[in-house]
Formats: sequence, structure tokens, C-alpha cells
Amino acid sequence: MPSYLSLDDTALQRELAALTERYAFHRAQSYSLKMVRGVPSPAQLDLSRTLETVLQAGDYRAEDGTDCRNYGGLEGIPEARRLFSELLHTSPDNILVFGNSSLNLMYDTIVAAILSPVPGADKPWSQVERPAFLCPSPGYDRHFSITERLGFENIPIAMTPTGPDMDAVEKRVASDARIKGIWCVPVYSNPDGIVYDEATCRRLASMAAAPDFRIFWDNAYGQHHLYPEHKSSVPDMLSLCEEAGHPDRVYAFTSTSKITYAGAGVSCMAASPANLAYRKQVMFYQTIGHDKMNQLRHVRFLRDRAGVEQLMEKHAKILRPKFEAVLGMLEEELSQTGIARWNKPMGGYFISLFAYPGTATEAVEAARACGVEFTPAGATYPGGIDPDDSNIRIAPTFPPLGEVKTAAEVLCICVRMTAVRKILRDRATA
Amino acid sequence: MPSYLSLDDTALQRELAALTERYAFHRAQSYSLKMVRGVPSPAQLDLSRTLETVLQAGDYRAEDGTDCRNYGGLEGIPEARRLFSELLHTSPDNILVFGNSSLNLMYDTIVAAILSPVPGADKPWSQVERPAFLCPSPGYDRHFSITERLGFENIPIAMTPTGPDMDAVEKRVASDARIKGIWCVPVYSNPDGIVYDEATCRRLASMAAAPDFRIFWDNAYGQHHLYPEHKSSVPDMLSLCEEAGHPDRVYAFTSTSKITYAGAGVSCMAASPANLAYRKQVMFYQTIGHDKMNQLRHVRFLRDRAGVEQLMEKHAKILRPKFEAVLGMLEEELSQTGIARWNKPMGGYFISLFAYPGTATEAVEAARACGVEFTPAGATYPGGIDPDDSNIRIAPTFPPLGEVKTAAEVLCICVRMTAVRKILRDRATA
Repeated sequence: MPSYLSLDDTALQRELAALTERYAFHRAQSYSLKMVRGVPSPAQLDLSRTLETVLQAGDYRAEDGTDCRNYGGLEGIPEARRLFSELLHTSPDNILVFGNSSLNLMYDTIVAAILSPVPGADKPWSQVERPAFLCPSPGYDRHFSITERLGFENIPIAMTPTGPDMDAVEKRVASDARIKGIWCVPVYSNPDGIVYDEATCRRLASMAAAPDFRIFWDNAYGQHHLYPEHKSSVPDMLSLCEEAGHPDRVYAFTSTSKITYAGAGVSCMAASPANLAYRKQVMFYQTIGHDKMNQLRHVRFLRDRAGVEQLMEKHAKILRPKFEAVLGMLEEELSQTGIARWNKPMGGYFISLFAYPGTATEAVEAARACGVEFTPAGATYPGGIDPDDSNIRIAPTFPPLGEVKTAAEVLCICVRMTAVRKILRDRATA
Repeated sequence: MPSYLSLDDTALQRELAALTERYAFHRAQSYSLKMVRGVPSPAQLDLSRTLETVLQAGDYRAEDGTDCRNYGGLEGIPEARRLFSELLHTSPDNILVFGNSSLNLMYDTIVAAILSPVPGADKPWSQVERPAFLCPSPGYDRHFSITERLGFENIPIAMTPTGPDMDAVEKRVASDARIKGIWCVPVYSNPDGIVYDEATCRRLASMAAAPDFRIFWDNAYGQHHLYPEHKSSVPDMLSLCEEAGHPDRVYAFTSTSKITYAGAGVSCMAASPANLAYRKQVMFYQTIGHDKMNQLRHVRFLRDRAGVEQLMEKHAKILRPKFEAVLGMLEEELSQTGIARWNKPMGGYFISLFAYPGTATEAVEAARACGVEFTPAGATYPGGIDPDDSNIRIAPTFPPLGEVKTAAEVLCICVRMTAVRKILRDRATA
């Protein structure tokens, strides 16, 4: 099949008729398939089934003697700090352990900076006129929603195969002190699955920026390799920032949400001593301490980095066929059409499909009408607006394999169908 | 022994010599006793020892089918909402379930109101010039710290045996729209152990106040009766506020922190439909959901109101001797001196002692020098300043009974000693 763009109108009409017939077939099936959010499947959750019973009655002491049942312990228990330090390749002293939601932790971290000046700031972000955040896009909608909700201007930055477009980042940040942060998912980015290269990390660490500029380094998928023999990672950003003379620039986050239980895991933050001292001071007013029993439960279950890696290999075994089913379908259905491109992630939770420009909304809507739901087109851009109306986020992790295949096929048909229509429309109005 | 105030200087000097000798004896013992915070003892925590093992592997579904391991569920699982509704005597629909810390929940509730207007407000509290909170005092230092930290003026209000001085509250709130809230611990107040009477509750519900005025109704000790045959409670404040035509006025809070595990419990908020809708909207940006496994674990373990009551009777059995030991010591050592008064709480976590005015700081310091630590004098007042320098909070729950007795005796000696000194000083300068 030649590229759609090289077909004449008659050939395109014929293609449209064939696609419409296939679409009608699927529409008649009354599907109810969801590939909307990056949510682990029950089979993945089952991998941690002993998490619930790993704490025997009477097992409540942390290694420093702390009674994990009682109040206190703003920093987290030592063994949980150590476990996270192994995952983030930093020192346990640089880690604070929090509750079950790293998203909540990031939200809270920005609220803290709004209310109390971060180290290096001469005033809280509430006193910055029109504060702004950089949003490498496509990116994680829930990141962008936080800064939008909290009154920041979200500035889109293009993603490249090596990370955010650093020329654009450097230019913006150097010239505009309103810019207080950047959202980064450095390993297997949401949704592109891109891994930042070292040059990008070094430029982020060393670029000129306001003293209260912060990199929100959400290492959500640092352990989430689809091919355990190929483990992508990025440099320890705390060290890079320190080497570059900006030790307080980065807040790194991770959690066990997609390692053990998505809703009942443990999150953490890694940062410089000054940032941690600041954060502990804020936290003193905020809480008497996070859930240390859940920290202990996780350490008992995961043990150490090797334990996490073994568990993640089991996740990969479940996820790989789903990713490969989608990628196979994209290849089969779209590779010759010349109207779409996509990434082949080596890890993470998403496949990022770029449909023919100006058709993503219509394609996702057509799939929805067929009972197959994807993340709304545009959601991966600040304000929900993809300037190209092209990106579609595919989240293949939750549904069973058979459904993933069907959903991907329906999506491909919709992407092809809407592309043909658009090309025909464009020609008609040309 | 006659009242110190009726003794002449010689008799007081004699008394001081005797007390100094007793003090020296205790000081020589190298105690290290802490009665600082309202923290449950290990024996109390042991009462919930099966909490850890109550969830068998495979037990993760809420009654509505929710997989508690996975993401989602901003409201809390239905059975946890129902359990809390039984404790707060309201409808499950009025309940949202949160994480392990009700203090964090209260902090967050104020931050939400600072950033986003609450129902009834025409602007967020961040745009109120010199916003203020009423602080019935003595009260809970961690409450006062939150509003102080977040930029509110903390206005002390006297406590009476029936709750806050309502004449003062009504007068202040009616005349000053800056006042956005009041901190209340309505049952077994911290530290006085006072239970608000119904008239106080009705006046709080019906008084004239700004539309965005909120009662922070921290029902932390609602289940914490020392004498299970005598269960104090207060009316359902949501209903009272609704009846009074101010349905959105109250945010009620409670948690299982001092029912099961202090650091690993579940907290909740009860409020009107408008307040809950507002709160869920804020929460949407804040988190993907709280720890539903811990909610399920708690429901399995506590079951219902009757289950909670049975457990609280066991707590009472452990706590009663400690409270009675302190009260017995106060009676024995102080009742005839005429220089101190105290409350006899029927529940809660504290005994509130009013030492001779102008001596609390010195008395607590003298005890500390003896190795016996109490909450710093003044901590129970906004800004840490007790205008009478009189109130001392005694937290007898954590140490073993023997230590509680010793600590109480040392405190009594210090209170008597510093009172005698003060009386002598005052006479000398009169």
C-alpha cells in the first residue's frame, strides 16, 4: 500500500469505503474497552499479593528501634530511605519518605513554595507575578493540571528523542525569571517513552536560571523496563546539579505505586540538604508523620534494589505482550500509510502515537463512538490543547491482551479513516 | 496543711526547705521521663496487633467492587465512609476518607481555602487582609501552629467548663469579618478534657459570622472515654449548622489514630454537600486517591461502631490507672495548698493543671532539670504565651504507670516549690 498522501482522490475514496466497512463491523460489537489511564492490571497487582501478609503480628520496629505504629518520624524509617536511595542512586540522607501518592507530594511541594520561600528565593511563589512552569509536551496531564490549578502559566516545550528541546528551555529560563520550574519524566517519559540523554541532564543542571527555579524530576518509571536486559537510566540529577554549582535546583521523586500497589504504595523525594531542611520545616506544621507501617511493609516485601528488579521483571513479562501487540498493530496498519508515527518505548506505561495532524480529536472520538476509550486527544499538552491535534496516548497496561489488540485495531482504523477524510477535505478546500 | 497564701513568710520558708529537700532527692535519681505529647503507649498499640494480619492475601475488594490496591477513589471506600459516619453520627454521604493524619487533613483544608474560595466566599483567604482564627485556650498547640504558620492572627478565647466563652466568640465573629475560623476539640478538649454543652454547640452553629467562616470541629477524642459507663458526646454539628441555616459552616474531623495505630490510621472529614463537592474538586488536582488498603484493613479490624467501642474499653482499662494516679497525686500534693486547680477529665488524653499564676514556666523547667519532661508551659496558648503563665499540660498516656506516678510527684513538688518562691518574691517586692 502506498502512502495515503500519494493516492489520488478516487483511491482515497476507495480506501475510505473499506475502512468505513471495517469500522462499522467493530461498532456493531458493542465494545466497552478502556485504554485511558496508566493503571496496572490486576495480574500485575497480584505480583505483590504477599505485601499484605509480609508484616507478621509483632513486626513493627524499624531498624533504629522506632515503633512504626506510633506517631513521629518526619523523615521516614531508615530502611525505607535506604531502599529509595538505591532506586534513585543517591544517599539515604538525601531522601524523605512520604505517603502513598507522589503526585500529592509534588502538589504539596509546589504549594510549599507558594506559601514559603524555597532555599534561594527572596519571596514565596505567591508573590511572583504570573509565575510560569515549563511543560515538555507531550507530557503528563496530571503534572500540567497541578501548575495550571495553582495559577502558573504552563509553557509548552517540544520533546525531542533525547528529552526536552534544551535550546528552547535554556533560552526561556535564562530570559524569564517568572519561570519557576520544569516538569520532567526523565526515564520512559509519559507518554513518549523517551529517556533523557546525559547532555540534556547536564544542560538542565548547569543552565542559567532563577535561584528558586526547580526541576521537578519525576522518576516515575525508573524501574519500569519492558526489556530487563536493556535498562535505561539517567544520571543522578542531584549530583549533576551539585557539580554544576546548583545543588538546590532539583526535586527528584519516585514511588512504589507501579511497583507494588498503585493506590497503597510509598512515595519519596530526594533533594539537597538545604531543600530537605526547608521541607522538613514545612512538614512539621503539616503532619506528625507519614504511615511508617506501610514503609516497613514495603521494605520487608521489596527488600532492596535487587528485590525490586526481580519484581519488575515479572511486571515486564505481563506488559511486554501488550506493548508488542499495540506496536505490531501500528506497524501492520499504519506503517505504509505515511500519515502516522509513533515511539517504540523500552519501558514505562505508554505508547505515544502521532496521528495525521488535525485528526487526533476526531480519531479518538470515532474510537469512543465504537466503545473504545483513549485519553482525550490534547490531554498530553498544557491546557489540553495539542497545537497539531496529532498526539494520542495509548495506555495498554490495564486491559487483558485480547482487548488491547482489539482496541489498537479500532484505533488504527479510526486514525486511518480520519486521515483520509482530512486529506480529502484539505484537497477540496485547496 | 493550710493554704500557702495564708502562711507567713517563716512557714513558707520552712515549706520551701522541705520541698527543696524532696526535690534534691528526685534530682539525684537521674530520671529520664517524658509526659510531653499525647501519644498512646505500646500496650495500647498492642490492642490492635491483629490489624496487620486482618487482610488475608486476596482480600482487596471493597463492597462496591473497587480493587483497593489500584488507583482511584477520592471519596474513600463505602464501608470506611459508613464506619466514620457511625462515629460522627452523620450520613456516609457527608464523609470523605483521607490518609493517616487528620492534622495533615486540617492543614490541607486551610491551605485549600487559602488558594481556592470555599463555598460562600467571594475570594480565597489569601486575599483577606490579616485573616484571623479563634483559638479557645488552653488548646491544642498543633492546631494553633498551623494557623500561625499559614499567616493567620491567632486570637485567644477563654475556655469555660462548657466550652469556649461564647459571649466572646459571638462578639468577635460578628464584628470582624477577618475571622475565618475557630479551632474546636468538642469532646474531651485538649488539654482541659472539657465537653462542649449543647447550648455552646447551638450558639456556634447559629451565631452571625462571615459566609466563609468555618468551625474546625476536631472530634479527636469522641470515642476516648475513660469511663465507658459515662460516654460524653456532643450533638452532630453538621445537623445543628444545617438547622441554623448555615449548612456549610462546619468541617468535622476525626481519625483512628488513637483507636488503632497513631501513625498508621485513617482520617476523615465530614461536611455539607457543597463543602464536599468543593473539597473533591481541590483533591482532584492533589492526588489520585488515598490509601484504600488501609481503609479496608481498618474496616475489617474495627468492623463498626460497636467494634470501636469494645476496643476503646480496652484502651480505657490501660489509661484509667494512669489518669487516676496523676489525679490522686494532684489531690494529695496540691489540694490543700490553695495555689493550683485542675480538671478531672472523663476522657481524652490530658490533664490540665493550672499552677500558681506566674510559675508554670519555672515549674516545668524545674521538672525538666530533674529529668521529667512536660509540654513546655505556654504551649497550649497561641504563640506559646500563656498570659497567666499558669497552665501545664500533663500527658500521662505513654509512660508506664510507675513512671507516671513519679513524674506527677516531681511535677507537684516543682509546682509547690515555685509557688512558694513566687509568693515570697511578691511579698518582698510588695
